[in-house]
Amino acid sequence: MSKRPFIGVVGEQECAPEMAALAERVGEALARRGAVLVCGGMGGVMEAAARGAKRAGGLTVGILPGAHRSSANPFIDVPIVTNLGEARNSIVVRSAQAIVAVGGSYGTLSEIAFALKLGIPVVGLATWRLDKDGHGREGFQDPIVRVSDPETAVETALRLATQYPETIP
Amino acid sequence: MSKRPFIGVVGEQECAPEMAALAERVGEALARRGAVLVCGGMGGVMEAAARGAKRAGGLTVGILPGAHRSSANPFIDVPIVTNLGEARNSIVVRSAQAIVAVGGSYGTLSEIAFALKLGIPVVGLATWRLDKDGHGREGFQDPIVRVSDPETAVETALRLATQYPETIP
Amino acid sequence: MSKRPFIGVVGEQECAPEMAALAERVGEALARRGAVLVCGGMGGVMEAAARGAKRAGGLTVGILPGAHRSSANPFIDVPIVTNLGEARNSIVVRSAQAIVAVGGSYGTLSEIAFALKLGIPVVGLATWRLDKDGHGREGFQDPIVRVSDPETAVETALRLATQYPETIP
Amino acid sequence: MSKRPFIGVVGEQECAPEMAALAERVGEALARRGAVLVCGGMGGVMEAAARGAKRAGGLTVGILPGAHRSSANPFIDVPIVTNLGEARNSIVVRSAQAIVAVGGSYGTLSEIAFALKLGIPVVGLATWRLDKDGHGREGFQDPIVRVSDPETAVETALRLATQYPETIP
Repeated sequence: MSKRPFIGVVGEQECAPEMAALAERVGEALARRGAVLVCGGMGGVMEAAARGAKRAGGLTVGILPGAHRSSANPFIDVPIVTNLGEARNSIVVRSAQAIVAVGGSYGTLSEIAFALKLGIPVVGLATWRLDKDGHGREGFQDPIVRVSDPETAVETALRLATQYPETIP
Repeated sequence: MSKRPFIGVVGEQECAPEMAALAERVGEALARRGAVLVCGGMGGVMEAAARGAKRAGGLTVGILPGAHRSSANPFIDVPIVTNLGEARNSIVVRSAQAIVAVGGSYGTLSEIAFALKLGIPVVGLATWRLDKDGHGREGFQDPIVRVSDPETAVETALRLATQYPETIP
Repeated sequence: MSKRPFIGVVGEQECAPEMAALAERVGEALARRGAVLVCGGMGGVMEAAARGAKRAGGLTVGILPGAHRSSANPFIDVPIVTNLGEARNSIVVRSAQAIVAVGGSYGTLSEIAFALKLGIPVVGLATWRLDKDGHGREGFQDPIVRVSDPETAVETALRLATQYPETIP
Repeated sequence: MSKRPFIGVVGEQECAPEMAALAERVGEALARRGAVLVCGGMGGVMEAAARGAKRAGGLTVGILPGAHRSSANPFIDVPIVTNLGEARNSIVVRSAQAIVAVGGSYGTLSEIAFALKLGIPVVGLATWRLDKDGHGREGFQDPIVRVSDPETAVETALRLATQYPETIP
């Protein structure tokens, strides 16, 4: 089995330019560190991250919601055609050993939720904040590891990924 | 096609007694109002809601994550055996015209996220609160419709469900 | 858990009138015997079987491939909205304790294959015949239980379903 | 998007040595011709094909049914962790532009069925033979393109893949 770490990058399909810039730096830093980029294969944050990864010579995997490989962004090396719609979000998460969330909409929130449920580390850049209503939930602490720049996001994700049991070959 | 509304109830598989009590009242109120209960078919909030619905003579659908119909709680009339794990969460949501979230863990959060992504109304009883980090997201307003008792939750869900286009036969 | 048997009916979405007539009799016989009909929820064989079941007062479940409950045929009581495309075929099969295949195209063939893989009995009315090329496969016997009329199909499916372990409550 | 063809190899998880030998030659020939191998990532035919592909320096993708990347065979470069069980079979098929079926059990039959339904070419080496019962099905011709050696299988699959519309970049 591949010994290279697989890191997911999740975020909005239609994102602001500053989010795309962050995602591109995440992708580039991942590739420089030898990680394989796993993402949803579409536009926005996914495309920016893949563009960054390819610039640094990385390998990019896009787990597509639709039925056609042609829907992948141009920077995806390995398009996985699921035709599952948003149900593919759990595959993006499970195929990664840590995820970096960059901004994000409700699809991203579902990916964060799946990762936290499965115990896969989540590093956040300007992303969702979680809190719960009362009813005995005192002391709930948002488990997203927040960082403020892409390079720290990647460093943190790679460090946490090695602690995730499935990383051990 | 069935003209009865289909309402989802989502929440933790292992829940505190007070959450189960809330969920049971939600299930009972749904059945009294003629709605079909859709849930994940397992224990905790799902079982309590189904118990309440059966007490009031309702119909209950359980969309199971596992491979065996015997994993359904005893109050499920229609067990759907998906074997998809948590990827079945999007089916629970899509099969409902509105959802009521009772408390909830990360699985519930993924269901809330899917519903919000798809435009399916979410009514919350002591559940997650959503917020976003900066980066141009000023003015973000948590779209969960919060209520404080089960009967109001059901009334609100049924009212919102009729506004959801797919309700129109 | 429901003690009524759940029986799947699978077949083409666009079928010849004689196939629809067979499927309608299958649905009707299932309902008369107290079984719940599970099908893919769409047209052709699925619609004919559901029509037959409703005429006899049965309960019908449609596990839809698409994203909208409105795609269900008019005889479906419980529409399950999967948005999984043909990947939903394994849910149709797993949610049944035996399946009756009426004619059928490649989608039906995939359902027969899943059922045989999982050990779920398959009763066939004018459906696929399976054979294998050489390479040590001598003695392969097509495991589909072939019958020649709908009533026998239903009687056989119900008998075989009680032998399938998951039937035991 | 990657311009390399993606070819699926499907077959039994527990296979006879002569089937493994065929699959290994298929994988090797695919890699020599520059194709990416897509398979289910597990043992038997999948492992043999991946072993052959890696010997010739190819790239291998394994779309796993289970929940753990460690379930991939040792020759998989890109493990996709679906946790969907046999429902992942449609992803294996959709992610390929043509498939080569080597022998095969019921899971393989489901993959052949999905490919034929979707119009993805199927090349067969000692695999299933399909036929239909009467009822107006005269003239049905088994659409699997049968070949008798691995190298011809690969040549045929690559030729047919270029005719499949999605191949066009």
